[in-house]
Amino acid sequence: MITLKELADKVNGKLIGDGSIAISTVDDLKSASNKSITFAFLPKFKKEISSSSAAAFIVTSDEDLKENAGIVVENPYLAMITILDLFDNRPVPVFNISKHSELHESVEKPHNLHIGAFSVIEQDVVLGENVFIGNGVKINAGCVIGDNSVIYDNVVLYDNTILGKNCIINAGTVIGSDGFGYHTVGNEHHKIPHIKTVIIGNDVEIGAACTIDRGSVQDTTIGDFCKFDNQVHIAHNVSIGKACLFAGGVFIGGSTKIKDFVTIAGKSDIGPHITLGEKSVIAARSCVLKSLPGSEMYAGNPARPIKEKQKRDAIYTRFELLEKRLKKDAS
Amino acid sequence: MITLKELADKVNGKLIGDGSIAISTVDDLKSASNKSITFAFLPKFKKEISSSSAAAFIVTSDEDLKENAGIVVENPYLAMITILDLFDNRPVPVFNISKHSELHESVEKPHNLHIGAFSVIEQDVVLGENVFIGNGVKINAGCVIGDNSVIYDNVVLYDNTILGKNCIINAGTVIGSDGFGYHTVGNEHHKIPHIKTVIIGNDVEIGAACTIDRGSVQDTTIGDFCKFDNQVHIAHNVSIGKACLFAGGVFIGGSTKIKDFVTIAGKSDIGPHITLGEKSVIAARSCVLKSLPGSEMYAGNPARPIKEKQKRDAIYTRFELLEKRLKKDAS
Amino acid sequence: MITLKELADKVNGKLIGDGSIAISTVDDLKSASNKSITFAFLPKFKKEISSSSAAAFIVTSDEDLKENAGIVVENPYLAMITILDLFDNRPVPVFNISKHSELHESVEKPHNLHIGAFSVIEQDVVLGENVFIGNGVKINAGCVIGDNSVIYDNVVLYDNTILGKNCIINAGTVIGSDGFGYHTVGNEHHKIPHIKTVIIGNDVEIGAACTIDRGSVQDTTIGDFCKFDNQVHIAHNVSIGKACLFAGGVFIGGSTKIKDFVTIAGKSDIGPHITLGEKSVIAARSCVLKSLPGSEMYAGNPARPIKEKQKRDAIYTRFELLEKRLKKDAS
Repeated sequence: MITLKELADKVNGKLIGDGSIAISTVDDLKSASNKSITFAFLPKFKKEISSSSAAAFIVTSDEDLKENAGIVVENPYLAMITILDLFDNRPVPVFNISKHSELHESVEKPHNLHIGAFSVIEQDVVLGENVFIGNGVKINAGCVIGDNSVIYDNVVLYDNTILGKNCIINAGTVIGSDGFGYHTVGNEHHKIPHIKTVIIGNDVEIGAACTIDRGSVQDTTIGDFCKFDNQVHIAHNVSIGKACLFAGGVFIGGSTKIKDFVTIAGKSDIGPHITLGEKSVIAARSCVLKSLPGSEMYAGNPARPIKEKQKRDAIYTRFELLEKRLKKDAS
Repeated sequence: MITLKELADKVNGKLIGDGSIAISTVDDLKSASNKSITFAFLPKFKKEISSSSAAAFIVTSDEDLKENAGIVVENPYLAMITILDLFDNRPVPVFNISKHSELHESVEKPHNLHIGAFSVIEQDVVLGENVFIGNGVKINAGCVIGDNSVIYDNVVLYDNTILGKNCIINAGTVIGSDGFGYHTVGNEHHKIPHIKTVIIGNDVEIGAACTIDRGSVQDTTIGDFCKFDNQVHIAHNVSIGKACLFAGGVFIGGSTKIKDFVTIAGKSDIGPHITLGEKSVIAARSCVLKSLPGSEMYAGNPARPIKEKQKRDAIYTRFELLEKRLKKDAS
Repeated sequence: MITLKELADKVNGKLIGDGSIAISTVDDLKSASNKSITFAFLPKFKKEISSSSAAAFIVTSDEDLKENAGIVVENPYLAMITILDLFDNRPVPVFNISKHSELHESVEKPHNLHIGAFSVIEQDVVLGENVFIGNGVKINAGCVIGDNSVIYDNVVLYDNTILGKNCIINAGTVIGSDGFGYHTVGNEHHKIPHIKTVIIGNDVEIGAACTIDRGSVQDTTIGDFCKFDNQVHIAHNVSIGKACLFAGGVFIGGSTKIKDFVTIAGKSDIGPHITLGEKSVIAARSCVLKSLPGSEMYAGNPARPIKEKQKRDAIYTRFELLEKRLKKDAS
């Protein structure tokens, strides 16, 4: 429990109303009780303040509150992060090596190491400090895991995968499987060996049930600060720059280069062997089939600059107008 | 083995032909032998009856059978379920707690409990009666599993996930991972904590390799009787009503509300922060980008009422007609 | 280490330049060092030869090399496979049955068998010779695994799955889960039993995090020499012919028949209950909604012969031309 006054101090916000109100949880506007603080800074939520049972509200302007108590902040998302952290009751991991895990004798134990039950750390793996490995994780021979990285349950890292510091890999993700590469002669598909690996930078988060393939002739690389949602797929030999954001179901084709600060919305695909320029923003469900210079938003299949796409989408309306006009002319 | 007469009684159907025919298996029309019963009630299958080797056929009208033996039923799907159940030779689970599993001492053992090999049940998990947990399942601290629920191999439930009664979770599915939520300042993506959880109702089936994210400010909720196919993704803070059917590869964006009795066909996406009304039917590969009232079928990207979509799809034909007419006028 | 002369002999190529050059690794053109051989046979890479630091290059014509050393080959992909194999330093599996695995007493041990840690082989499973089962693999009762097959970490095979010889199943894939089949009465969805199984032929490779459902009335079957990329989904009762190639995210709907030698590019879907003819080639992101005869390329949603699709895509340009012409006529 914490008072509204204390909370206002923690988020560097301006207290409105009774500072002694006791807050014990965070909720959304609808499920909030008189012990909850809630976030009402998005325009569409402001009108719900008066009907919510929340004890207090995070807003961006004094006027939003009227008769309700709350905190006015400049940056509501930073306040949100601070407040959610404060009320986080999720279990805190304790560093412990499960007696039901298998840690190869060649692996040196760093300062602070958690290995969950039924996890395997194979030969010559290198583990940084404060590494947290959940249950059922399989880390194959020769992998490297940087300091403070967290790998959740049932993740698989194939041999020689390299993962930086402060990374989070969510459950069920597979990193380092062979890419989809065959040389077809007649009706026979001969497998191309994948002798390179996957190299992931620092501060990367990868969602659940993602797949990242290793390279054949060059490593598949993912830059620092990238964040991927669930069910993302990165093919072999791909290189991804820094701080890219890929939403759920994004697929990147083989040997493609994604430059820094690229954002790709849900279920979009980037074809193989192309280059997507810095600061590209790709709308949801787009399909990029040729290299694009970046620094603007693209949409559609094939993806085009968003304005061009919107102009094309208007063809139906323009066609109907033309039909009508011609009908009138004819009559 | 069972006679055709006995089978007709079990499905409350009308026997046609020799009731003493011995049936020992179910097959499709093409692979059937003279020991098989097969289903021929769909119009396209009726003409295949005469060339099939099956001993008997399930049909909906006497006339379908001509010289073949079979059973005429009113509801062929109910008959199908009864008959398939009857010939089901798949191994029947025996309740047993594997000595190679890890059950935290804080967890009370209910009446009848199966825990497969290399599964982990962490601290303070609550398990209902007759719960079946396969091999390699990871149930993290504080989860609740309702009576009679079945969780197949290698499923991961993050901490505090709540699962109702009579649920089935297929292999490799991940429930409760953090949602894809960052607050970006410049090129830095700050992680938004996800302190809420996932709450799944009763009688829910979830396919293989699905991902369901936990909420940040509100729980992700899935209503009773929902059925999801494989590789479905449900983002954070989503609420889904009762008895919804989502086919393979359906993705639901963050904070979206899906009302009761919604059917979504394969690979369709519902965008974030929208409401999809009761009894909406979404055609395959559609993309819903704004709230829709429901009680009708929508299709396309962006999704529109199906008739409107079909009208738009006809533009090509109309355009060609117009081109031709204008050419003729000009000549 | 190997000399360029020796390498030329191994790939049956023509040596250009100093045959005594020592090669110790393979790299792409950009990351190559003076110890690397690299592949420069694609037209777009030829111009990068002069600026690469590689010691030698694989090309298809003497003229490509100018002053650089290298090997001229007729079939560069076969040379690539030979050379990658030669420099493959990935760990070689050693046959060993982990003491942390669970092998049911009813299972006969073949000649050469690897079972990784925390893997389960249930009752009556039949294992061929030289089978390699990674860590955390769950093979349920009654499965059959053919000689020389490799199953990577955390794969799940439901009961009675049949896998041929020389197959590779990548990590996290789930085979044999129930298909998505319900009989809906009012708002209740009654589960249709899935009493058949999945039968996979010889020399099949399946990517990571794929899902293949078992059949209800007929087995789901996958022919010899098929190769699937990651996150592919095959629904219940599907039959797939020989040597098909499915790229990432391809979904095949229930009861559909795919004939031999079909290639399907990334994220394409084939609807349920249709037949896709031999040697069909489906472009990326297509959606096949009705049966197609095969032996040509199809594209779009709904998929059409590629030329027809391209003609339709040109409507925008034709419309703009028409608009302009009519404007001119009117003025």
